[in-house]
Amino acid sequence: MIIIGEKINSTLKAARAAIGAYDADFIRDLARRQEEAGATYIDVNAGMFLEDEPERMTWLVNTVQEVSRAPFSIDSPNPKAIEAGLQANRNPKPIINSITDEKERYTAILPLAKKYKTSLVALCMDDKGMPETVEDRLRVADSLVAKLGDEGFDHDDIYLDPMIRPIGTGPEYGVIAIETIRLIKEKYPRTHIACGLSNVSFGLPARKLINQAMLVAAMSAGMDGAILDPLDKKLMSFVYATEALLGIDDYCLNYLAKFREGELEL
Amino acid sequence: MIIIGEKINSTLKAARAAIGAYDADFIRDLARRQEEAGATYIDVNAGMFLEDEPERMTWLVNTVQEVSRAPFSIDSPNPKAIEAGLQANRNPKPIINSITDEKERYTAILPLAKKYKTSLVALCMDDKGMPETVEDRLRVADSLVAKLGDEGFDHDDIYLDPMIRPIGTGPEYGVIAIETIRLIKEKYPRTHIACGLSNVSFGLPARKLINQAMLVAAMSAGMDGAILDPLDKKLMSFVYATEALLGIDDYCLNYLAKFREGELEL
Repeated sequence: MIIIGEKINSTLKAARAAIGAYDADFIRDLARRQEEAGATYIDVNAGMFLEDEPERMTWLVNTVQEVSRAPFSIDSPNPKAIEAGLQANRNPKPIINSITDEKERYTAILPLAKKYKTSLVALCMDDKGMPETVEDRLRVADSLVAKLGDEGFDHDDIYLDPMIRPIGTGPEYGVIAIETIRLIKEKYPRTHIACGLSNVSFGLPARKLINQAMLVAAMSAGMDGAILDPLDKKLMSFVYATEALLGIDDYCLNYLAKFREGELEL
Repeated sequence: MIIIGEKINSTLKAARAAIGAYDADFIRDLARRQEEAGATYIDVNAGMFLEDEPERMTWLVNTVQEVSRAPFSIDSPNPKAIEAGLQANRNPKPIINSITDEKERYTAILPLAKKYKTSLVALCMDDKGMPETVEDRLRVADSLVAKLGDEGFDHDDIYLDPMIRPIGTGPEYGVIAIETIRLIKEKYPRTHIACGLSNVSFGLPARKLINQAMLVAAMSAGMDGAILDPLDKKLMSFVYATEALLGIDDYCLNYLAKFREGELEL
Protein backbone atom coordinates (compact mmCIF):
# COMPACT_ATOMS: atom_id res chain seq x y z
CA MET A 1 0.00 0.00 0.00
CA ILE A 2 1.04 3.53 -0.78
CA ILE A 3 0.45 5.45 2.44
CA ILE A 4 0.11 9.23 2.35
CA GLY A 5 0.71 10.27 5.97
CA GLU A 6 -1.94 12.84 6.87
CA LYS A 7 -0.76 14.19 10.22
CA ILE A 8 0.90 17.47 9.18
CA ASN A 9 -2.34 19.18 8.31
CA SER A 10 -3.42 22.59 9.50
CA THR A 11 -7.04 21.43 9.84
CA LEU A 12 -5.85 19.21 12.71
CA LYS A 13 -5.64 21.15 15.96
CA ALA A 14 -2.17 20.11 17.15
CA ALA A 15 -0.55 20.56 13.74
CA ARG A 16 -2.26 23.92 13.29
CA ALA A 17 -0.86 25.21 16.57
CA ALA A 18 2.62 23.95 15.68
CA ILE A 19 2.55 25.55 12.24
CA GLY A 20 1.21 28.76 13.76
CA ALA A 21 4.09 28.86 16.27
CA TYR A 22 6.77 27.68 13.81
CA ASP A 23 7.36 24.75 16.16
CA ALA A 24 9.90 22.93 14.01
CA ASP A 25 10.57 20.20 16.60
CA PHE A 26 6.92 19.18 16.59
CA ILE A 27 6.74 19.06 12.80
CA ARG A 28 10.04 17.21 12.41
CA ASP A 29 8.91 14.67 14.99
CA LEU A 30 5.61 14.08 13.17
CA ALA A 31 7.44 13.66 9.87
CA ARG A 32 10.00 11.26 11.29
CA ARG A 33 7.43 9.14 13.11
CA GLN A 34 5.14 8.90 10.10
CA GLU A 35 8.01 7.84 7.85
CA GLU A 36 9.13 5.22 10.38
CA ALA A 37 5.56 3.95 10.66
CA GLY A 38 5.40 3.29 6.92
CA ALA A 39 4.33 6.53 5.23
CA THR A 40 5.34 6.54 1.56
CA TYR A 41 4.49 10.25 1.22
CA ILE A 42 4.36 12.97 3.87
CA ASP A 43 1.36 15.22 3.32
CA VAL A 44 1.84 18.91 4.18
CA ASN A 45 -1.13 21.26 4.43
CA ALA A 46 -1.15 24.88 5.60
CA GLY A 47 -4.56 25.77 4.21
CA MET A 48 -5.89 27.26 7.45
CA PHE A 49 -3.36 30.10 7.22
CA LEU A 50 -5.12 31.72 4.28
CA GLU A 51 -2.94 34.53 2.82
CA ASP A 52 0.04 33.17 4.77
CA GLU A 53 -0.42 29.72 3.29
CA PRO A 54 2.44 29.90 0.74
CA GLU A 55 4.97 31.08 3.31
CA ARG A 56 3.90 28.43 5.85
CA MET A 57 4.02 25.78 3.13
CA THR A 58 7.63 26.76 2.34
CA TRP A 59 8.48 26.50 6.01
CA LEU A 60 6.77 23.09 6.33
CA VAL A 61 8.64 21.64 3.36
CA ASN A 62 11.98 22.98 4.57
CA THR A 63 11.35 21.76 8.10
CA VAL A 64 10.27 18.26 7.10
CA GLN A 65 13.08 17.67 4.63
CA GLU A 66 15.63 18.34 7.35
CA VAL A 67 14.72 14.93 8.78
CA SER A 68 12.92 12.93 6.10
CA ARG A 69 13.71 11.89 2.54
CA ALA A 70 10.11 10.72 1.96
CA PRO A 71 8.48 12.46 -1.00
CA PHE A 72 5.94 15.15 -0.21
CA SER A 73 2.25 15.29 -0.85
CA ILE A 74 1.79 19.03 -1.36
CA ASP A 75 -1.75 19.47 -0.10
CA SER A 76 -3.61 22.58 -1.22
CA PRO A 77 -6.15 23.79 -3.77
CA ASN A 78 -4.17 27.06 -3.94
CA PRO A 79 -1.67 27.27 -6.83
CA LYS A 80 0.49 29.79 -5.00
CA ALA A 81 0.87 27.57 -1.95
CA ILE A 82 1.53 24.54 -4.14
CA GLU A 83 4.24 26.35 -6.08
CA ALA A 84 5.83 27.60 -2.85
CA GLY A 85 6.03 24.00 -1.63
CA LEU A 86 7.36 22.69 -4.93
CA GLN A 87 10.03 25.39 -5.14
CA ALA A 88 11.31 24.54 -1.67
CA ASN A 89 11.21 20.77 -2.23
CA ARG A 90 14.54 18.86 -2.40
CA ASN A 91 13.05 15.39 -1.74
CA PRO A 92 12.20 12.83 -4.46
CA LYS A 93 9.30 13.29 -6.90
CA PRO A 94 6.40 14.85 -5.02
CA ILE A 95 2.68 14.53 -5.56
CA ILE A 96 0.29 17.46 -5.80
CA ASN A 97 -2.81 16.88 -3.66
CA SER A 98 -4.95 17.65 -5.60
CA ILE A 99 -6.23 18.43 -9.05
CA THR A 100 -9.86 18.01 -10.13
CA ASP A 101 -11.69 18.19 -13.45
CA GLU A 102 -13.13 21.59 -12.49
CA LYS A 103 -12.05 23.86 -15.33
CA GLU A 104 -10.51 26.61 -13.19
CA ARG A 105 -8.66 24.31 -10.80
CA TYR A 106 -7.47 22.01 -13.58
CA THR A 107 -6.12 24.94 -15.60
CA ALA A 108 -4.36 26.47 -12.62
CA ILE A 109 -2.71 23.32 -11.28
CA LEU A 110 -1.77 21.41 -14.44
CA PRO A 111 1.12 23.79 -15.37
CA LEU A 112 2.67 23.33 -11.90
CA ALA A 113 2.57 19.54 -12.21
CA LYS A 114 4.24 19.79 -15.62
CA LYS A 115 6.82 22.40 -14.62
CA TYR A 116 7.91 20.50 -11.48
CA LYS A 117 7.33 17.01 -12.97
CA THR A 118 5.11 15.84 -10.11
CA SER A 119 2.57 13.08 -9.69
CA LEU A 120 -1.05 14.10 -9.06
CA VAL A 121 -3.89 13.18 -6.78
CA ALA A 122 -6.91 13.62 -9.07
CA LEU A 123 -10.32 13.92 -7.40
CA CYS A 124 -13.23 12.40 -9.35
CA MET A 125 -15.06 15.72 -9.35
CA ASP A 126 -15.82 18.35 -11.98
CA ASP A 127 -17.84 21.54 -12.37
CA LYS A 128 -21.06 19.58 -11.85
CA GLY A 129 -20.02 19.31 -8.17
CA MET A 130 -19.80 16.30 -5.88
CA PRO A 131 -20.47 13.15 -7.92
CA GLU A 132 -23.49 11.06 -6.97
CA THR A 133 -23.17 7.72 -8.79
CA VAL A 134 -20.44 5.29 -9.82
CA GLU A 135 -21.00 6.40 -13.42
CA ASP A 136 -20.49 10.08 -12.49
CA ARG A 137 -17.16 9.19 -10.90
CA LEU A 138 -16.00 7.04 -13.82
CA ARG A 139 -16.89 9.72 -16.33
CA VAL A 140 -14.63 12.19 -14.49
CA ALA A 141 -11.90 9.54 -14.07
CA ASP A 142 -12.04 8.82 -17.81
CA SER A 143 -11.78 12.52 -18.59
CA LEU A 144 -8.86 13.13 -16.19
CA VAL A 145 -6.89 10.05 -17.26
CA ALA A 146 -7.32 10.95 -20.93
CA LYS A 147 -6.37 14.62 -20.50
CA LEU A 148 -3.43 13.97 -18.21
CA GLY A 149 -2.26 11.22 -20.55
CA ASP A 150 -2.32 13.71 -23.45
CA GLU A 151 -0.22 16.07 -21.34
CA GLY A 152 2.44 13.40 -20.95
CA PHE A 153 1.64 12.03 -17.51
CA ASP A 154 2.18 8.31 -17.13
CA HIS A 155 -0.73 6.37 -15.60
CA ASP A 156 1.65 5.53 -12.75
CA ASP A 157 1.73 9.26 -11.87
CA ILE A 158 -2.05 9.51 -11.44
CA TYR A 159 -3.68 8.83 -8.05
CA LEU A 160 -7.46 8.82 -8.45
CA ASP A 161 -9.58 9.67 -5.43
CA PRO A 162 -13.09 8.19 -5.77
CA MET A 163 -14.57 10.85 -3.45
CA ILE A 164 -15.97 8.75 -0.64
CA ARG A 165 -19.07 10.29 0.88
CA PRO A 166 -20.41 9.61 4.41
CA ILE A 167 -22.63 6.52 4.70
CA GLY A 168 -24.57 8.38 7.36
CA THR A 169 -25.87 10.69 4.62
CA GLY A 170 -26.61 7.94 2.09
CA PRO A 171 -26.54 4.18 2.70
CA GLU A 172 -25.30 3.54 -0.84
CA TYR A 173 -22.13 5.64 -0.60
CA GLY A 174 -19.94 2.83 0.74
CA VAL A 175 -20.82 0.47 -2.11
CA ILE A 176 -20.46 3.32 -4.64
CA ALA A 177 -16.91 4.02 -3.47
CA ILE A 178 -15.92 0.33 -3.44
CA GLU A 179 -17.41 -0.24 -6.89
CA THR A 180 -15.72 2.89 -8.29
CA ILE A 181 -12.35 1.64 -7.05
CA ARG A 182 -12.92 -1.78 -8.60
CA LEU A 183 -13.88 -0.36 -11.99
CA ILE A 184 -11.05 2.21 -12.09
CA LYS A 185 -8.44 -0.46 -11.33
CA GLU A 186 -10.02 -2.78 -13.92
CA LYS A 187 -9.94 -0.11 -16.61
CA TYR A 188 -6.68 1.65 -15.68
CA PRO A 189 -4.65 -0.94 -13.77
CA ARG A 190 -1.48 1.18 -13.73
CA THR A 191 -3.11 4.24 -12.18
CA HIS A 192 -3.25 4.34 -8.40
CA ILE A 193 -6.03 5.03 -5.96
CA ALA A 194 -5.60 7.59 -3.17
CA CYS A 195 -8.63 7.53 -0.92
CA GLY A 196 -9.37 9.82 1.95
CA LEU A 197 -10.89 6.97 3.95
CA SER A 198 -12.22 8.59 7.07
CA ASN A 199 -14.89 10.66 5.34
CA VAL A 200 -16.98 7.49 5.07
CA SER A 201 -17.72 7.47 8.82
CA PHE A 202 -18.43 11.18 9.26
CA GLY A 203 -21.18 11.75 11.83
CA LEU A 204 -21.22 8.15 13.14
CA PRO A 205 -20.04 6.83 16.50
CA ALA A 206 -17.11 4.40 16.81
CA ARG A 207 -15.77 5.82 13.56
CA LYS A 208 -12.55 3.82 13.68
CA LEU A 209 -14.49 0.59 13.23
CA ILE A 210 -16.14 1.86 10.03
CA ASN A 211 -12.82 3.26 8.78
CA GLN A 212 -11.08 -0.09 9.37
CA ALA A 213 -13.86 -1.93 7.53
CA MET A 214 -13.65 0.59 4.68
CA LEU A 215 -9.88 0.11 4.45
CA VAL A 216 -10.24 -3.67 4.11
CA ALA A 217 -13.18 -3.50 1.69
CA ALA A 218 -11.46 -0.88 -0.49
CA MET A 219 -8.16 -2.79 -0.53
CA SER A 220 -9.95 -5.97 -1.54
CA ALA A 221 -11.53 -3.98 -4.41
CA GLY A 222 -8.05 -2.89 -5.57
CA MET A 223 -7.26 0.27 -3.60
CA ASP A 224 -3.46 0.55 -3.53
CA GLY A 225 -3.11 3.93 -1.84
CA ALA A 226 -4.77 5.93 0.91
CA ILE A 227 -4.43 9.15 2.84
CA LEU A 228 -4.46 8.05 6.46
CA ASP A 229 -2.80 8.25 9.85
CA PRO A 230 0.18 5.87 9.79
CA LEU A 231 0.58 6.38 13.56
CA ASP A 232 -2.75 4.57 14.07
CA LYS A 233 -1.28 1.14 14.83
CA LYS A 234 -4.60 -0.63 14.64
CA LEU A 235 -5.35 0.76 11.19
CA MET A 236 -1.84 -0.10 9.99
CA SER A 237 -2.30 -3.61 11.41
CA PHE A 238 -5.26 -3.98 9.06
CA VAL A 239 -3.12 -2.75 6.17
CA TYR A 240 -0.64 -5.57 6.86
CA ALA A 241 -3.33 -8.19 7.54
CA THR A 242 -5.20 -7.31 4.36
CA GLU A 243 -2.04 -7.34 2.26
CA ALA A 244 -1.39 -10.84 3.61
CA LEU A 245 -4.99 -11.85 2.91
CA LEU A 246 -4.86 -10.56 -0.66
CA GLY A 247 -1.54 -12.24 -1.46
CA ILE A 248 0.15 -8.86 -1.97
CA ASP A 249 2.44 -9.79 0.91
CA ASP A 250 3.81 -13.06 -0.42
CA TYR A 251 3.74 -15.82 2.17
CA CYS A 252 2.86 -13.18 4.77
CA LEU A 253 6.53 -12.29 5.23
CA ASN A 254 5.90 -8.62 6.01
CA TYR A 255 2.94 -9.53 8.27
CA LEU A 256 5.15 -11.94 10.20
CA ALA A 257 7.91 -9.32 10.47
CA LYS A 258 5.43 -6.75 11.81
CA PHE A 259 4.21 -9.30 14.34
CA ARG A 260 7.76 -9.98 15.52
CA GLU A 261 8.41 -6.23 15.81
CA GLY A 262 5.32 -5.88 18.00
CA GLU A 263 3.64 -3.66 15.42
CA LEU A 264 0.38 -5.63 15.16
CA GLU A 265 -2.40 -4.41 17.41
CA LEU A 266 -5.28 -6.78 18.07
CA MET B 1 -25.71 -11.59 8.03
CA ILE B 2 -26.75 -15.14 8.75
CA ILE B 3 -24.62 -16.19 11.71
CA ILE B 4 -24.13 -19.88 12.46
CA GLY B 5 -22.93 -19.92 16.07
CA GLU B 6 -20.00 -22.31 16.29
CA LYS B 7 -19.42 -22.66 20.03
CA ILE B 8 -21.16 -26.00 20.76
CA ASN B 9 -18.58 -28.08 18.97
CA SER B 10 -16.85 -31.14 20.37
CA THR B 11 -13.59 -30.17 18.71
CA LEU B 12 -13.46 -27.19 21.11
CA LYS B 13 -12.02 -28.22 24.46
CA ALA B 14 -14.61 -26.67 26.80
CA ALA B 15 -17.58 -27.90 24.77
CA ARG B 16 -16.06 -31.34 24.46
CA ALA B 17 -15.71 -31.65 28.23
CA ALA B 18 -19.28 -30.44 28.75
CA ILE B 19 -20.71 -32.88 26.21
CA GLY B 20 -18.62 -35.69 27.73
CA ALA B 21 -19.99 -34.92 31.20
CA TYR B 22 -23.58 -34.25 30.05
CA ASP B 23 -23.19 -30.78 31.55
CA ALA B 24 -26.56 -29.41 30.43
CA ASP B 25 -26.13 -26.07 32.21
CA PHE B 26 -22.96 -25.32 30.27
CA ILE B 27 -24.55 -26.20 26.93
CA ARG B 28 -27.77 -24.30 27.64
CA ASP B 29 -25.74 -21.25 28.65
CA LEU B 30 -23.71 -21.38 25.44
CA ALA B 31 -26.87 -21.70 23.38
CA ARG B 32 -28.63 -18.85 25.13
CA ARG B 33 -25.65 -16.50 24.94
CA GLN B 34 -25.03 -17.21 21.26
CA GLU B 35 -28.67 -16.58 20.41
CA GLU B 36 -28.66 -13.32 22.39
CA ALA B 37 -25.44 -12.27 20.64
CA GLY B 38 -27.08 -12.61 17.24
CA ALA B 39 -26.70 -16.26 16.15
CA THR B 40 -29.29 -17.13 13.49
CA TYR B 41 -28.47 -20.85 13.78
CA ILE B 42 -26.95 -22.81 16.67
CA ASP B 43 -24.42 -25.31 15.40
CA VAL B 44 -24.20 -28.61 17.32
CA ASN B 45 -21.32 -31.01 16.77
CA ALA B 46 -20.53 -34.20 18.69
CA GLY B 47 -18.10 -35.64 16.18
CA MET B 48 -15.32 -36.31 18.69
CA PHE B 49 -17.49 -38.94 20.42
CA LEU B 50 -17.17 -41.39 17.52
CA GLU B 51 -19.59 -44.32 18.02
CA ASP B 52 -21.44 -42.33 20.70
CA GLU B 53 -21.92 -39.40 18.33
CA PRO B 54 -25.63 -40.05 17.52
CA GLU B 55 -26.61 -40.35 21.18
CA ARG B 56 -24.66 -37.21 22.15
CA MET B 57 -26.20 -35.35 19.22
CA THR B 58 -29.68 -36.26 20.45
CA TRP B 59 -28.76 -35.01 23.90
CA LEU B 60 -27.31 -31.75 22.50
CA VAL B 61 -30.42 -30.99 20.47
CA ASN B 62 -32.74 -31.75 23.38
CA THR B 63 -30.64 -29.70 25.78
CA VAL B 64 -30.36 -26.66 23.52
CA GLN B 65 -34.03 -26.54 22.56
CA GLU B 66 -34.99 -26.31 26.22
CA VAL B 67 -33.74 -22.72 26.14
CA SER B 68 -33.52 -21.62 22.50
CA ARG B 69 -35.91 -21.47 19.57
CA ALA B 70 -33.08 -20.75 17.12
CA PRO B 71 -32.88 -23.29 14.30
CA PHE B 72 -30.09 -25.86 14.49
CA SER B 73 -27.11 -26.37 12.28
CA ILE B 74 -26.70 -30.15 12.61
CA ASP B 75 -22.96 -30.49 12.16
CA SER B 76 -21.63 -33.89 11.17
CA PRO B 77 -20.49 -35.89 8.16
CA ASN B 78 -22.13 -38.96 9.78
CA PRO B 79 -25.65 -39.73 8.52
CA LYS B 80 -26.56 -41.56 11.74
CA ALA B 81 -25.62 -38.59 13.91
CA ILE B 82 -27.41 -36.20 11.57
CA GLU B 83 -30.59 -38.26 11.64
CA ALA B 84 -30.43 -38.53 15.44
CA GLY B 85 -30.27 -34.73 15.64
CA LEU B 86 -33.06 -34.22 13.11
CA GLN B 87 -35.35 -36.71 14.87
CA ALA B 88 -34.93 -34.89 18.18
CA ASN B 89 -35.33 -31.41 16.67
CA ARG B 90 -38.47 -29.40 17.56
CA ASN B 91 -37.07 -25.99 16.54
CA PRO B 92 -37.74 -24.29 13.18
CA LYS B 93 -36.27 -25.54 9.90
CA PRO B 94 -32.73 -26.77 10.55
CA ILE B 95 -29.71 -26.83 8.31
CA ILE B 96 -27.52 -29.88 7.75
CA ASN B 97 -23.83 -28.97 7.99
CA SER B 98 -22.77 -30.36 5.55
CA ILE B 99 -23.19 -32.10 2.23
CA THR B 100 -20.50 -32.19 -0.47
CA ASP B 101 -20.40 -33.35 -4.07
CA GLU B 102 -18.46 -36.45 -3.05
CA LYS B 103 -20.59 -39.32 -4.36
CA GLU B 104 -20.78 -41.32 -1.12
CA ARG B 105 -21.46 -38.36 1.16
CA TYR B 106 -23.95 -36.77 -1.25
CA THR B 107 -25.89 -40.03 -1.59
CA ALA B 108 -25.97 -40.62 2.17
CA ILE B 109 -27.00 -37.13 3.24
CA LEU B 110 -29.44 -36.06 0.51
CA PRO B 111 -32.27 -38.40 1.66
CA LEU B 112 -32.06 -36.95 5.19
CA ALA B 113 -32.36 -33.40 3.91
CA LYS B 114 -35.39 -34.41 1.85
CA LYS B 115 -37.06 -36.48 4.57
CA TYR B 116 -36.69 -33.77 7.22
CA LYS B 117 -37.08 -30.83 4.80
CA THR B 118 -33.87 -29.12 5.90
CA SER B 119 -31.61 -26.53 4.37
CA LEU B 120 -28.06 -27.57 3.50
CA VAL B 121 -24.54 -26.28 3.88
CA ALA B 122 -22.90 -27.51 0.66
CA LEU B 123 -19.09 -27.58 0.58
CA CYS B 124 -17.52 -26.83 -2.80
CA MET B 125 -15.68 -30.12 -2.79
CA ASP B 126 -16.04 -33.39 -4.69
CA ASP B 127 -14.24 -36.71 -5.12
CA LYS B 128 -11.28 -34.90 -6.66
CA GLY B 129 -10.52 -33.63 -3.13
CA MET B 130 -9.85 -30.11 -1.88
CA PRO B 131 -10.39 -27.64 -4.75
CA GLU B 132 -7.42 -25.59 -5.87
CA THR B 133 -8.75 -22.80 -8.13
CA VAL B 134 -11.80 -20.55 -8.37
CA GLU B 135 -12.90 -22.59 -11.40
CA ASP B 136 -12.69 -25.86 -9.43
CA ARG B 137 -14.95 -24.37 -6.77
CA LEU B 138 -17.46 -22.98 -9.24
CA ARG B 139 -17.67 -26.27 -11.11
CA VAL B 140 -18.65 -28.03 -7.85
CA ALA B 141 -21.04 -25.19 -6.93
CA ASP B 142 -22.70 -25.47 -10.36
CA SER B 143 -23.07 -29.23 -9.94
CA LEU B 144 -24.49 -29.00 -6.41
CA VAL B 145 -26.92 -26.18 -7.18
CA ALA B 146 -28.19 -28.03 -10.28
CA LYS B 147 -28.59 -31.38 -8.53
CA LEU B 148 -30.18 -29.97 -5.39
CA GLY B 149 -32.47 -27.85 -7.56
CA ASP B 150 -33.60 -30.99 -9.40
CA GLU B 151 -34.32 -32.59 -6.02
CA GLY B 152 -36.68 -29.75 -5.16
CA PHE B 153 -34.46 -27.58 -2.97
CA ASP B 154 -35.00 -23.86 -3.37
CA HIS B 155 -31.84 -21.78 -3.91
CA ASP B 156 -32.68 -20.10 -0.61
CA ASP B 157 -32.11 -23.46 1.12
CA ILE B 158 -28.56 -23.83 -0.18
CA TYR B 159 -25.59 -22.41 1.76
CA LEU B 160 -22.44 -22.75 -0.32
CA ASP B 161 -19.11 -22.95 1.50
CA PRO B 162 -16.25 -21.82 -0.79
CA MET B 163 -13.70 -23.89 1.19
CA ILE B 164 -11.31 -21.22 2.38
CA ARG B 165 -7.75 -22.52 2.65
CA PRO B 166 -4.99 -21.03 4.84
CA ILE B 167 -3.09 -18.13 3.28
CA GLY B 168 -0.02 -19.37 5.13
CA THR B 169 0.01 -22.38 2.79
CA GLY B 170 -0.69 -20.43 -0.41
CA PRO B 171 -0.69 -16.64 -0.84
CA GLU B 172 -3.47 -16.86 -3.44
CA TYR B 173 -6.03 -18.61 -1.22
CA GLY B 174 -7.54 -15.42 0.19
CA VAL B 175 -8.23 -13.94 -3.22
CA ILE B 176 -9.52 -17.30 -4.48
CA ALA B 177 -12.08 -17.46 -1.66
CA ILE B 178 -13.18 -13.84 -2.14
CA GLU B 179 -13.49 -14.27 -5.91
CA THR B 180 -15.43 -17.54 -5.51
CA ILE B 181 -17.92 -15.79 -3.23
CA ARG B 182 -18.35 -12.93 -5.69
CA LEU B 183 -18.97 -15.24 -8.65
CA ILE B 184 -21.36 -17.56 -6.76
CA LYS B 185 -23.49 -14.62 -5.61
CA GLU B 186 -23.43 -13.15 -9.13
CA LYS B 187 -24.57 -16.42 -10.70
CA TYR B 188 -26.92 -17.65 -7.95
CA PRO B 189 -28.01 -14.53 -6.05
CA ARG B 190 -30.66 -16.37 -4.02
CA THR B 191 -28.31 -19.01 -2.66
CA HIS B 192 -26.43 -18.16 0.51
CA ILE B 193 -22.79 -18.36 1.48
CA ALA B 194 -21.73 -20.09 4.70
CA CYS B 195 -18.00 -19.65 5.22
CA GLY B 196 -15.88 -21.17 7.90
CA LEU B 197 -13.80 -18.01 8.16
CA SER B 198 -11.08 -18.85 10.61
CA ASN B 199 -9.37 -21.46 8.45
CA VAL B 200 -7.85 -18.60 6.44
CA SER B 201 -5.48 -17.66 9.28
CA PHE B 202 -4.39 -21.18 10.29
CA GLY B 203 -0.74 -21.23 11.34
CA LEU B 204 -0.33 -17.42 11.52
CA PRO B 205 0.10 -15.20 14.57
CA ALA B 206 -2.52 -12.60 15.56
CA ARG B 207 -5.12 -14.73 13.78
CA LYS B 208 -8.04 -12.55 14.84
CA LEU B 209 -6.73 -9.68 12.74
CA ILE B 210 -6.67 -11.84 9.59
CA ASN B 211 -10.09 -13.29 10.42
CA GLN B 212 -11.58 -9.81 10.86
CA ALA B 213 -10.09 -8.69 7.53
CA MET B 214 -11.43 -11.84 5.86
CA LEU B 215 -14.91 -11.19 7.27
CA VAL B 216 -14.98 -7.66 5.85
CA ALA B 217 -13.49 -8.64 2.48
CA ALA B 218 -15.84 -11.61 2.09
CA MET B 219 -18.90 -9.57 3.10
CA SER B 220 -17.99 -6.89 0.59
CA ALA B 221 -17.79 -9.63 -2.06
CA GLY B 222 -21.33 -10.77 -1.19
CA MET B 223 -20.93 -13.24 1.68
CA ASP B 224 -24.23 -13.26 3.56
CA GLY B 225 -23.54 -16.06 6.03
CA ALA B 226 -20.68 -17.39 8.12
CA ILE B 227 -19.89 -19.97 10.76
CA LEU B 228 -18.26 -17.97 13.53
CA ASP B 229 -18.16 -17.18 17.24
CA PRO B 230 -20.97 -14.71 17.94
CA LEU B 231 -19.57 -14.20 21.45
CA ASP B 232 -16.50 -12.55 19.89
CA LYS B 233 -17.66 -8.95 20.33
CA LYS B 234 -14.92 -7.51 18.17
CA LEU B 235 -15.76 -9.80 15.26
CA MET B 236 -19.48 -9.05 15.64
CA SER B 237 -18.65 -5.32 15.73
CA PHE B 238 -17.13 -5.77 12.27
CA VAL B 239 -20.28 -7.56 11.12
CA TYR B 240 -22.33 -4.50 12.11
CA ALA B 241 -19.81 -1.97 10.77
CA THR B 242 -19.57 -3.77 7.44
CA GLU B 243 -23.34 -4.08 7.11
CA ALA B 244 -23.51 -0.30 7.65
CA LEU B 245 -20.71 0.27 5.13
CA LEU B 246 -22.39 -1.90 2.49
CA GLY B 247 -25.81 -0.28 2.91
CA ILE B 248 -27.33 -3.56 4.14
CA ASP B 249 -28.08 -1.76 7.39
CA ASP B 250 -30.14 1.13 6.07
CA TYR B 251 -29.06 4.45 7.51
CA CYS B 252 -26.88 2.52 9.98
CA LEU B 253 -29.86 2.02 12.30
CA ASN B 254 -28.71 -1.35 13.61
CA TYR B 255 -25.12 -0.09 13.94
CA LEU B 256 -26.32 2.88 15.97
CA ALA B 257 -28.47 0.60 18.15
CA LYS B 258 -25.49 -1.69 18.82
CA PHE B 259 -23.41 1.33 19.72
CA ARG B 260 -26.04 2.52 22.21
CA GLU B 261 -26.25 -0.97 23.71
CA GLY B 262 -22.48 -0.95 24.24
CA GLU B 263 -22.04 -3.88 21.83
CA LEU B 264 -19.41 -2.24 19.61
CA GLU B 265 -15.84 -3.02 20.56
CA LEU B 266 -13.14 -0.76 19.18
